[in-house]
Amino acid sequence: MRIALDAMGGDRAPEAVVEGAVLALAQVPADVEVVLVGDLERIKPILDHLGPPSDRLHLQHASEVVAMDEAPGVALRRLKDSSIRVCYNLHKAGEADAVVSAGNTGAVMALGVVIMGRLAEVDRPALASAFPALRGPTLLIDVGANVDCTPMMLLQFGYMGSVYAERVMGLERPQVGLLNVGEEPGKGNTAVKQASEYLKNSALNFRGNVEGRDLFVGETQVIVCDGFVGNICLKLVEGLAINFNVFFREIMTGTIKGRLGGLLLKNNFRDVATRMDYATYGGAPLLGINGVSLICHGSSSPKAIVSAVKAAANTVRAEVTRHLSEGLEHYHDSLAAGKVRELRPHTVPGGPGQ
Amino acid sequence: MRIALDAMGGDRAPEAVVEGAVLALAQVPADVEVVLVGDLERIKPILDHLGPPSDRLHLQHASEVVAMDEAPGVALRRLKDSSIRVCYNLHKAGEADAVVSAGNTGAVMALGVVIMGRLAEVDRPALASAFPALRGPTLLIDVGANVDCTPMMLLQFGYMGSVYAERVMGLERPQVGLLNVGEEPGKGNTAVKQASEYLKNSALNFRGNVEGRDLFVGETQVIVCDGFVGNICLKLVEGLAINFNVFFREIMTGTIKGRLGGLLLKNNFRDVATRMDYATYGGAPLLGINGVSLICHGSSSPKAIVSAVKAAANTVRAEVTRHLSEGLEHYHDSLAAGKVRELRPHTVPGGPGQ
Repeated sequence: MRIALDAMGGDRAPEAVVEGAVLALAQVPADVEVVLVGDLERIKPILDHLGPPSDRLHLQHASEVVAMDEAPGVALRRLKDSSIRVCYNLHKAGEADAVVSAGNTGAVMALGVVIMGRLAEVDRPALASAFPALRGPTLLIDVGANVDCTPMMLLQFGYMGSVYAERVMGLERPQVGLLNVGEEPGKGNTAVKQASEYLKNSALNFRGNVEGRDLFVGETQVIVCDGFVGNICLKLVEGLAINFNVFFREIMTGTIKGRLGGLLLKNNFRDVATRMDYATYGGAPLLGINGVSLICHGSSSPKAIVSAVKAAANTVRAEVTRHLSEGLEHYHDSLAAGKVRELRPHTVPGGPGQ
Repeated sequence: MRIALDAMGGDRAPEAVVEGAVLALAQVPADVEVVLVGDLERIKPILDHLGPPSDRLHLQHASEVVAMDEAPGVALRRLKDSSIRVCYNLHKAGEADAVVSAGNTGAVMALGVVIMGRLAEVDRPALASAFPALRGPTLLIDVGANVDCTPMMLLQFGYMGSVYAERVMGLERPQVGLLNVGEEPGKGNTAVKQASEYLKNSALNFRGNVEGRDLFVGETQVIVCDGFVGNICLKLVEGLAINFNVFFREIMTGTIKGRLGGLLLKNNFRDVATRMDYATYGGAPLLGINGVSLICHGSSSPKAIVSAVKAAANTVRAEVTRHLSEGLEHYHDSLAAGKVRELRPHTVPGGPGQ
């Protein structure tokens, strides 16, 4: 198994990514190999510093880099030899089984869709992200691929999230919830109200509407939302994780009592901080393309890259793409059985199409 | 000054509200009086238990109660003597200067709009909520009054939030941000993209798009969003505050070292917990109606009621309603000057109107 790793993606690339690749190879099973993709003139000196290379580390040159703030359209139309594109080309050609990038999220998504293509039944691929919730991980889908969503897209996200949670996160028949402003049926904005009906009539283990607080303290394992709401929630949580650390530091310093207490609690604190640390959660899978793609946070550390490589290997091993296709067949069956009617297909509420 | 307090609203009513009223009167300036509104047969025995009543505590009977899970339409059409309605009737008649309720949020909002009326220039009143952010309080508007919003409504929320932050929170010319999925212009869903243009051309101190993380660690003091996103964020934060407490308890118990450290840090912890505690933040003001209305969390404790009564008194004293009208005149001036053009007024993206 080979993971194509975008060496040039992320605020700390290529150093953090190259170091992450080397660390990852020491931790993953021996059948996992990594292809580092990027500017070899920059990658090789970093590798040299890190000691003798593993024979499971391969290099693939790519002459261009998509800047972190570049418009995805530029990566699509102009940059023909970007590290992101070369990663997907390797995947498409069967020379890699997955793509991992901490680069420009919009470009990684857009190139993933264009080069790998979409699975049948998927209108738009979605980005999923696991949260460290109180009762175990929770998957939020979509966290930013689609800012305007139709009810039908939200239903598809439910199917994709459910399959991923079952196959990769190991949750049996995961409970699916729809992120909403209240638990009662009939709540929500126009798109969400309709999506709630669709999900209720689907083959999913749908528990109904869930609220913001359920992201952390609830029992729902897959939470469906549009990419606008999901992205804001994801970043809100990141901001809170930072806040959490600041609060702790404040508590544990200042007075002598505080500093002493802090010393005693250092290890306990570290355990919790690890749980809150997104670096331990791997990348966010882009679900619905015909391949495996994990998108990491732009500020990814070597440790975050290690987690993402591990997650990519797990995703490939779990045959997620095949299971997604099968899961989406159930969705197709619901459509065929008339349980879910597609209203105004492919138009987006509030979008320019209306 | 008189605050009409809905004695029957909230999961712990009337006990928690009556106790909160008595506690509040001992803490607010001597010119503030409270009218407890509700079923006097239930209120009086609770008051009797709390000792000799203040002469600044008044009672007003209301024979009906809006249940916490009742549809707001029922409160509007059928319940003609509900405690919420009687509170607003007192306010409308000039016998009270503000309404405070921890009751059914939908009913408190709907009756507020219907009985008090809207300010000129306001399409829809919005609910605002102060967050305990890292660099001081941040105001999020709307947190649940409107789940589908036009760009023009978002602009109005900016004006209302800015006036409230300036007059009640004491922030001079507060920075206003638009909650979005990225800081770059051109980001966002259809409604938000247009709203961003409107805000840029407004008389507000608009700093541009802000992201989820800015809710906690940013410098923006007023954050504008639609009520769907805002409600989810608010409840997400509540969930996290619960989580925070759980994490702390976990850290500070278990081992002997943990328990000893916990003892040393008890006071420091309490300070932070207070800061995270929404009970200390008063109620959420319903801005845009022709009056003062604060909506408290359904699970409000007596302490939360005290905070809300204080906040209501501050809001009345700051003459927020008058200043809102004046602030919205600037909005009107922008419209008149052609800086902001109202596109398809009063239609909601994705709403049934399209």
